[in-house]
Amino acid sequence: MIRVGILGATGYTAFELMKILLRHNDVEVTALTSRQEDEPHVGTVHPQLAGRLDLHLENVEPMSVAAKTDCIFSCLPHGVSASVIPHLLAADRRVIDFGADYRLNDAEVYAKWYGQRHPDPQRVGSVVYGLPEFFREEIQSAQLVANPGCYPSSAILALAPLLMAELIDPSEIIIDSKSGVTGAGRTPKLTTHYPECNESLSAYNVGRHRHTPEIEQVLSVVADKEVSVIFTPHLVPMDRGILTTTYSRPLKPVSEQLLLDTLREYYADRPFVRVAEHLPGTKDTVGTNFCDITVRIVRGCVITISCLDNLVKGASGVAVQNFNLMYGFSETAAL
Amino acid sequence: MIRVGILGATGYTAFELMKILLRHNDVEVTALTSRQEDEPHVGTVHPQLAGRLDLHLENVEPMSVAAKTDCIFSCLPHGVSASVIPHLLAADRRVIDFGADYRLNDAEVYAKWYGQRHPDPQRVGSVVYGLPEFFREEIQSAQLVANPGCYPSSAILALAPLLMAELIDPSEIIIDSKSGVTGAGRTPKLTTHYPECNESLSAYNVGRHRHTPEIEQVLSVVADKEVSVIFTPHLVPMDRGILTTTYSRPLKPVSEQLLLDTLREYYADRPFVRVAEHLPGTKDTVGTNFCDITVRIVRGCVITISCLDNLVKGASGVAVQNFNLMYGFSETAAL
Amino acid sequence: MIRVGILGATGYTAFELMKILLRHNDVEVTALTSRQEDEPHVGTVHPQLAGRLDLHLENVEPMSVAAKTDCIFSCLPHGVSASVIPHLLAADRRVIDFGADYRLNDAEVYAKWYGQRHPDPQRVGSVVYGLPEFFREEIQSAQLVANPGCYPSSAILALAPLLMAELIDPSEIIIDSKSGVTGAGRTPKLTTHYPECNESLSAYNVGRHRHTPEIEQVLSVVADKEVSVIFTPHLVPMDRGILTTTYSRPLKPVSEQLLLDTLREYYADRPFVRVAEHLPGTKDTVGTNFCDITVRIVRGCVITISCLDNLVKGASGVAVQNFNLMYGFSETAAL
Amino acid sequence: MIRVGILGATGYTAFELMKILLRHNDVEVTALTSRQEDEPHVGTVHPQLAGRLDLHLENVEPMSVAAKTDCIFSCLPHGVSASVIPHLLAADRRVIDFGADYRLNDAEVYAKWYGQRHPDPQRVGSVVYGLPEFFREEIQSAQLVANPGCYPSSAILALAPLLMAELIDPSEIIIDSKSGVTGAGRTPKLTTHYPECNESLSAYNVGRHRHTPEIEQVLSVVADKEVSVIFTPHLVPMDRGILTTTYSRPLKPVSEQLLLDTLREYYADRPFVRVAEHLPGTKDTVGTNFCDITVRIVRGCVITISCLDNLVKGASGVAVQNFNLMYGFSETAAL
Repeated sequence: MIRVGILGATGYTAFELMKILLRHNDVEVTALTSRQEDEPHVGTVHPQLAGRLDLHLENVEPMSVAAKTDCIFSCLPHGVSASVIPHLLAADRRVIDFGADYRLNDAEVYAKWYGQRHPDPQRVGSVVYGLPEFFREEIQSAQLVANPGCYPSSAILALAPLLMAELIDPSEIIIDSKSGVTGAGRTPKLTTHYPECNESLSAYNVGRHRHTPEIEQVLSVVADKEVSVIFTPHLVPMDRGILTTTYSRPLKPVSEQLLLDTLREYYADRPFVRVAEHLPGTKDTVGTNFCDITVRIVRGCVITISCLDNLVKGASGVAVQNFNLMYGFSETAAL
Repeated sequence: MIRVGILGATGYTAFELMKILLRHNDVEVTALTSRQEDEPHVGTVHPQLAGRLDLHLENVEPMSVAAKTDCIFSCLPHGVSASVIPHLLAADRRVIDFGADYRLNDAEVYAKWYGQRHPDPQRVGSVVYGLPEFFREEIQSAQLVANPGCYPSSAILALAPLLMAELIDPSEIIIDSKSGVTGAGRTPKLTTHYPECNESLSAYNVGRHRHTPEIEQVLSVVADKEVSVIFTPHLVPMDRGILTTTYSRPLKPVSEQLLLDTLREYYADRPFVRVAEHLPGTKDTVGTNFCDITVRIVRGCVITISCLDNLVKGASGVAVQNFNLMYGFSETAAL
Repeated sequence: MIRVGILGATGYTAFELMKILLRHNDVEVTALTSRQEDEPHVGTVHPQLAGRLDLHLENVEPMSVAAKTDCIFSCLPHGVSASVIPHLLAADRRVIDFGADYRLNDAEVYAKWYGQRHPDPQRVGSVVYGLPEFFREEIQSAQLVANPGCYPSSAILALAPLLMAELIDPSEIIIDSKSGVTGAGRTPKLTTHYPECNESLSAYNVGRHRHTPEIEQVLSVVADKEVSVIFTPHLVPMDRGILTTTYSRPLKPVSEQLLLDTLREYYADRPFVRVAEHLPGTKDTVGTNFCDITVRIVRGCVITISCLDNLVKGASGVAVQNFNLMYGFSETAAL
Repeated sequence: MIRVGILGATGYTAFELMKILLRHNDVEVTALTSRQEDEPHVGTVHPQLAGRLDLHLENVEPMSVAAKTDCIFSCLPHGVSASVIPHLLAADRRVIDFGADYRLNDAEVYAKWYGQRHPDPQRVGSVVYGLPEFFREEIQSAQLVANPGCYPSSAILALAPLLMAELIDPSEIIIDSKSGVTGAGRTPKLTTHYPECNESLSAYNVGRHRHTPEIEQVLSVVADKEVSVIFTPHLVPMDRGILTTTYSRPLKPVSEQLLLDTLREYYADRPFVRVAEHLPGTKDTVGTNFCDITVRIVRGCVITISCLDNLVKGASGVAVQNFNLMYGFSETAAL
């Protein structure tokens, strides 16, 4: 039985994580933290968990969590995470970080996109990126895993096998993504106030979204060449789900069948990617750890369409998938 | 041309009011206020109004608004409204107050339900309640009109004619209301954060909602007897609309036909109430100043079902209806 | 390993049932049926199940399903179910019927509310009603279980312990229920066409809903006295969830604490009912088999507020709960 | 007073059209048709119009409508429209066709994309395309106007001025559009059944949507060069609104300022296009006849983002704008 702690347990990814871990036969959640001074019961913060998990969200130092746990999931904000995690690692705990701190392998790129110096620069570049479809072996032996961003997972899973097979041009790939509102977190803001975003659709952070360098870096690593993307995120009036539509140029004459076969072959023994003939909708994946992908060729342009649940395959589900690999459990346990 | 000012112009009722007034041939909106220090353009605060109304939201004293206007709509919070309005009235302006300050005719009831002393107690009890279906004549000559609450309008319009005709028991009327989220205002809160209230339904303020004494008072006045109600509001995942279901006991043998006829007769020359045979839905009234009502008898219990748009007939539409009556325009102008 | 078949596998309750059964360690789903002539793969009908369950929906006689299964869940329409189930029972299969055919214990009441003669009248009155919180023992040994309606579960769970304790008046209990749209099934209709019901709320089937006699019968049985209700269902723009607000008169002086304690005591060892101090929202129960209940007293009126997921605790979750009891598995297995 | 008839009055565009025309001082709606045999009252078909328009939907030949009207709006399906309109024109009526029959100027292209022979091929190529921002003068004198498709309007308004100024490459422009569900019409289908499309996002008709040749034709005409596009529509869980994101390559070094200025200059005296600095959302335009547009440059790629209400600027609003031009009323009357 692995004892698990969750840092920053008030948000949606922590909530989803707890729901998944409650189904995991080999896990006991033993510690939760938040900065709320009254240390509320988890059933107060997440009423759906009332009667299912009897813990309070403690307002404590992360190291006091280490004492009660074997593995720690950090749902802390970027910047905070990387100031805490070194201590947990020094105490021999294994850590899965939901934040962006350890995803980029260049502290200067981090500083540029996140607007702050990296708190733990010497570790940057050596942390495993937790996308099991591409880094399964590294994850198995990792002490620290950087859990991927939700948008990057949806784009990388669709594009990487095509780039690796040198079927599409790695430059100026257009990534038009659409996400449900949980992706914006649980802190009330005007833009996510119900009557503002309900019944409305808008683009945001065009050209400035922090997932841009993450997508480029991971695609460049797996394809072993420089990949550049134009990434446009949109906010959709629904709770969860990401659908990503990409547009790229083929490097050689290709058919839809070849593209589908390339994807199918790559994902043949990866249990959470489904390559489909039909056009998938986000609801096909909601509440699951699946990413559904299809491909079309329109007037010579390669279009991929992929979708996943931003809180599951885009965050907490893939985190448990990583956890399973790290501890030698079935990759699909509890998922 | 009547020059109109709006105090507290950032919220949803003010926004809806501006949209209606822009269609009014005899109105010019000449002043807007808010407490935002940067005095933003109205097109920034309400992008839908960009290019349609060229005013800034001024962070000024209400009296400086009086200088530019003939009639003032106050969308200020309760408590604030009643500290400002006396000065506007003293300057001979006519005022329509969206807040609750002048709706109750007893300062002690106000203090009990609103948790504060009334700022203008001597005026309490002499202000016209702005429900034109019942107080049209008083509204025509009023200098100050207390615009009704959204829930009260939906309940009073359904019940009052039946109480006036002594068809239903005035005691312990059950009022089960359901409202869209704009009713909760534009200030971000966790309860109205999109992923919290979307795809969810809940009751709130059970037994404690401040519209309870307002409903009782107005029904008691129009029926000329003491009316008591049990009022339960619910929050529905939609932008706008209120549907109110009431349950009361008949005082004598009644048929659905008699009840419908009683309502139809009462509203025959009131243009904004539609008595229907079918079960109305809130969408039938969205964006309109109509209140749709029907009646059923189930096992001897009289059930009324009424619906309206909380921002129009429940707030800004009825305000313009009142304005029209006050200034001698057609009651339906711009509506 | 129990082999399970599902009759009528295209709808939402069958889909939810499959998702739950896929998590059940002691179940193998071995047969699915529908009347679609092309016998589609389940992953085509329910794309979320692609890659998780490799079965086609067969267009076959129910008896050919019996050959492959130990236990059969029937999601067939009322009328059809009761013409099929006798044969399955004769073949010694155990059956859980999602439809209404075996819920009422009086064939004449059935004929009156369902507008047709009962196809299997001699069995009526002897079938176990599958609400485990009240009929756990009978369910354990039943060959056939009539799975409860979604509205009835929400109302009965809130009211029954108060009626059993003789705390509330059994006559003229008002039940005002609000349901998400999956409750209306998967067949496209104008009333459930997205732009018709989205952003709208309406009552329907007022005084005529078929769950009325079911609620009355079960409450009368458990309270051992005649119970009469006035039931008003409403359609809410959300996928799933029922919130039921009931209004009844106390039979003696009661406090909220006494009412809560009565509920808590009754449900102390029933794992899927949570009695709460706070006002629950449907989202607290979505995707779970919980029913959350609270109570308020307003001006002497007893108000219960209860909610559940109409597809889980209101249909497929309670069906698996019944299945677990019938086969001696943990009551909470897979739930 | 112009007497107006509407053919095919049951759908959403006809409903929206009636709402707008009811505000028009110079219009009287005198005839409505549908193929429903019981010839229902318009207030039954569209409850929001009850008490506002006293007409039945007649199941009559179009020519009997001509007798009661000066101008006819056809909301009939493609194929049907072009078999009816020639008779109306022969009877000297002016016609605005909401359908696609007269938008394309090549009967073979029509046959290819719409899968049927054009019923009125000799008129094809000479009909005015009703986008007033580009064809205002032609509209003024037209007897027949082909009202534009909703997606084409959103794309053309964003791209045309940039193409006309030779700022962007006319080949392989990527158009990623997202639409609310009213765009799919009022006939119930599984894909628009509430629980199917609510809380879900999907692409549809990728590479096959019939608006593709329409966009290309109109852009080619106004830019006077061949334009080719890759068009991907998506279905968004909201009632109304289209947001279109386009990606194109600049033909010369450009700045965002230059692009915005080019748009602003072009639309300076077109009252219904607003060029914005901020990223507009569909809600900024809902219920209005505005199209809001902005531009960004990301890594050398020109991105336009435009939005409009598919039922207003995308259908019925622009139809009334065309009507106003045809009859010499203010272009903004009733809008």
